[in-house]
Amino acid sequence: MTPNATEKRVLTAINERREVINDAIDIELPLAEPQRLYEASRYLLEAGGKRLRPTVTLLVGEALADEDTAAFEYRAFPTCSGGEVDLMRAAVAIEIIQSFTLIHDDIMDDDDLRRGVKSVHNQYDTETAILAGDTLYSKAFEIMADVGGDPTNTLEVMRRLSSACTKICEGQSLDVAFESRDDLTPEEYLEMVERKTAVLYGAAAAVPALLVDADDDIVEAMYNYGVESGKAFQIQDDVLDLTVPSEELGKQRGSDLVENKETLITLHARQQGVDVDGLLSDSTVETVTEAEIDAAVKTLEDAGSIDYARDMAEELTAQSKKRLEVLPDNEASDLLADLAEYLISRGY
Amino acid sequence: MTPNATEKRVLTAINERREVINDAIDIELPLAEPQRLYEASRYLLEAGGKRLRPTVTLLVGEALADEDTAAFEYRAFPTCSGGEVDLMRAAVAIEIIQSFTLIHDDIMDDDDLRRGVKSVHNQYDTETAILAGDTLYSKAFEIMADVGGDPTNTLEVMRRLSSACTKICEGQSLDVAFESRDDLTPEEYLEMVERKTAVLYGAAAAVPALLVDADDDIVEAMYNYGVESGKAFQIQDDVLDLTVPSEELGKQRGSDLVENKETLITLHARQQGVDVDGLLSDSTVETVTEAEIDAAVKTLEDAGSIDYARDMAEELTAQSKKRLEVLPDNEASDLLADLAEYLISRGY
Repeated sequence: MTPNATEKRVLTAINERREVINDAIDIELPLAEPQRLYEASRYLLEAGGKRLRPTVTLLVGEALADEDTAAFEYRAFPTCSGGEVDLMRAAVAIEIIQSFTLIHDDIMDDDDLRRGVKSVHNQYDTETAILAGDTLYSKAFEIMADVGGDPTNTLEVMRRLSSACTKICEGQSLDVAFESRDDLTPEEYLEMVERKTAVLYGAAAAVPALLVDADDDIVEAMYNYGVESGKAFQIQDDVLDLTVPSEELGKQRGSDLVENKETLITLHARQQGVDVDGLLSDSTVETVTEAEIDAAVKTLEDAGSIDYARDMAEELTAQSKKRLEVLPDNEASDLLADLAEYLISRGY
Repeated sequence: MTPNATEKRVLTAINERREVINDAIDIELPLAEPQRLYEASRYLLEAGGKRLRPTVTLLVGEALADEDTAAFEYRAFPTCSGGEVDLMRAAVAIEIIQSFTLIHDDIMDDDDLRRGVKSVHNQYDTETAILAGDTLYSKAFEIMADVGGDPTNTLEVMRRLSSACTKICEGQSLDVAFESRDDLTPEEYLEMVERKTAVLYGAAAAVPALLVDADDDIVEAMYNYGVESGKAFQIQDDVLDLTVPSEELGKQRGSDLVENKETLITLHARQQGVDVDGLLSDSTVETVTEAEIDAAVKTLEDAGSIDYARDMAEELTAQSKKRLEVLPDNEASDLLADLAEYLISRGY
């Protein structure tokens, strides 16, 4: 299968599941009273998003169910022990947690745009955005608590979900603290990425395994699959910012560099003695030229820093795919492998 | 027993339990990494607080255990079905949720002071305060998930805790929305108070009953005890603001009125045709005189509005005490009755 055919297949799988996930979000998070609060809570979810994390949740469930059916009953999903669980609620809860973190992160980072629309605090106000995030937080736990099945499993899921949320907060706190650090190491950066981004992918993959009562080694393998592919995803983001043309990126290529955002690439370059701060020191996102960016990228390439990040993303992806060996060999497990590849091969 | 002796007894009970609750908070919420995040998360908890909600949690457990012991093993608390549960973790989780709501509310209301110290966003910054609140939120769920005992009970506790958190967000949203409403009714105000304040008291009382495996009617009675006494507590706050001398209040008497804060008292007065907005229209907290406040209070008294609120608080307290009839007759259940009285008899 050519890379292009793989990408097509995984995009089709994502698109199909996005439809049903979106329908389920409407059901699980209705426009309740007070209306303004729920409008603000739903605003970002309605603005779009690929639903990658809930898709991982559904696919892990499908792979473990190992049934040859195109139309899974996600709401009454078969468990290994012969029971039923509402896998769709679990998927929706994961996506709602993701949405909550975006809303609060955008306030903290003062980002005006998200998913092509205004961020929630920009569209409404900071007070409403704080409260919308808080509401999504508790709704996610409410939704997850009612997936049915074995209470012991659901409780373990709640434990892991809350632990993941704590780590996300810690990761965001590290991210903010790192802005004023000039002695950051790649290892510290990776630790931040793991907590801020990757643990929720880990939860997205481990939760369905727990809910369908899979063996502990499968649960742990799925968690590691999620964490590793989530880390690769974030590292690849740094690479894409430098290597993908601005038209495809949808924003100025090299903007991380212009804005002095520390990435795995710049941290590696510093360790190689590159004067990273001097690379585009006089430029802004508005004034920087393609030639200046080309020169900066060339310096980073010569230092081996872009290859360093790309290699790490590929290595993590290969590791994550090996985790899938515990799964039955079927279409869903193949799609999980393709999805991991897609996370580092996609355009922006 | 004179009112004074009752108050003394309940204060002793609160103080004794506060010590052990504070020790447990230190254990369950250690100063982890990133240190600044956990410092900010612990800041308000360290600043003080009576620990009324976790005290309710412990007392309901003690009443149901019905054992004559001065030193309860809260960490290995006996359940009705012969098992054990860590009641102290449950109490700590409830207090942490309370602390989370205070931190985010202070940002939204732009309050600079809390518990006699700077509010978290004032001491640190808004970003840190948002994240500290979020961290407490997930830590509370993490702590609650590990109370042990029957997983079915713990899962039901997690369900109720997340549902309570959603209602708290809805209540805060209503509170903000009400600021721009001029047609608010006392009923709407009470609904807001129930969600914003009272449901967490309800959870504080229902959670221990659930965890020790009490019958459903006891769980519901405890929930209603908490909600009703919590509502009474909030209504009494409005009364105290007008009737307790400034020295005792620790702030200017009548400040709610000066700041045009709508309360049950003003809403009732409006319904009686009182020109509430004209009462202290030219005053600020700094310039208002005792004579002006006396005159305003006299107008509200003549309209029956202060008695209306006081009667409602007393009625709710009487109702809440009746809920305790399902409990065994012992020292702890007596203390729960005293505590309900204390909530409306206390100074500020």
